[in-house]
Amino acid sequence: MELFEKTLKRTPIYQGSIIDLEVHDVALPDGKESKRELIFHNGAVAVCAITPESEVIFVKQFRKPAEKPLLEIPAGKLEKGEEREAAAKRELEEETGYIAENLELIAEMYGSPGYSNEKVTIYLAKDLKTGEMHLDEDEFINLVTYSLEELKQLLDDNEVEDAKTIIAIQHLLLNYNHFK
Amino acid sequence: MELFEKTLKRTPIYQGSIIDLEVHDVALPDGKESKRELIFHNGAVAVCAITPESEVIFVKQFRKPAEKPLLEIPAGKLEKGEEREAAAKRELEEETGYIAENLELIAEMYGSPGYSNEKVTIYLAKDLKTGEMHLDEDEFINLVTYSLEELKQLLDDNEVEDAKTIIAIQHLLLNYNHFK
Repeated sequence: MELFEKTLKRTPIYQGSIIDLEVHDVALPDGKESKRELIFHNGAVAVCAITPESEVIFVKQFRKPAEKPLLEIPAGKLEKGEEREAAAKRELEEETGYIAENLELIAEMYGSPGYSNEKVTIYLAKDLKTGEMHLDEDEFINLVTYSLEELKQLLDDNEVEDAKTIIAIQHLLLNYNHFK
Repeated sequence: MELFEKTLKRTPIYQGSIIDLEVHDVALPDGKESKRELIFHNGAVAVCAITPESEVIFVKQFRKPAEKPLLEIPAGKLEKGEEREAAAKRELEEETGYIAENLELIAEMYGSPGYSNEKVTIYLAKDLKTGEMHLDEDEFINLVTYSLEELKQLLDDNEVEDAKTIIAIQHLLLNYNHFK
């Protein structure tokens, strides 16, 4: 069966600063019609950064949807027209004060593919240099670092609940026995 | 710094069948105010199921937000008041025709913690029995199975883009050399 849904009609519902919401009338593969509630997002980048001391840098920040602070790798939205690697380097320096000259791709992921087009590109950054931290006005974060052994324990205890961060940690555990 | 944002005012924007949208005026940790665009979702479950032939079962379905078919482990939304394990077993049987008597927890994840409260619980299912497949009216999926070796290759080639599915495959690669 050919898997495709054609949009027959778009109904814009909300245009926000981070997300837009539209409802689409679609034609299903069998020709019948259905509705899809869709969130449009500019896309995001995230960086799993390893310090000169061989630890991984995390930001802890209150996430309103979860109503609690979550442990996450540094991340942020793409600005309009911004290239993904440039955005990743910018976010890393803004949130942690570290500069990464080279990034390796870990994964590209849809976190909520049923209703959101947000694609997150996750990078690995090593050989960091010291730059300058600069947070957005409504950004309040605590920085924390963990060793690979500590990360394995956090994961086993289900203490990490952010999808991009779980993916980054498991990638490290699969690909690196140590960071040196 | 205490990481907390108090909701000062809720503005409902949209109530849909899968997601609701609200804008909250919040008090930031420093007392200043900001706005948060929030998607409310009932939550979801996903199952990484291993067949008697030691392969992992996937569904390939067209995802309107991505405008392409994605390879995913079987998953679905929680129905109102439904318990997560029961929902996982229901979705697995509906989408694949397999019955799982026991589930192991792999992870709980927020896919888009910046704006969505959707929490996905990912389970591992082994020792499957044969049940009855039953798809929703607007659900069109193709079933595919892969061995663990094939999954490692798919992951290395960045062919898997769904967050819960990447997490499940990495978990298998970290915890199982083979399924027997």
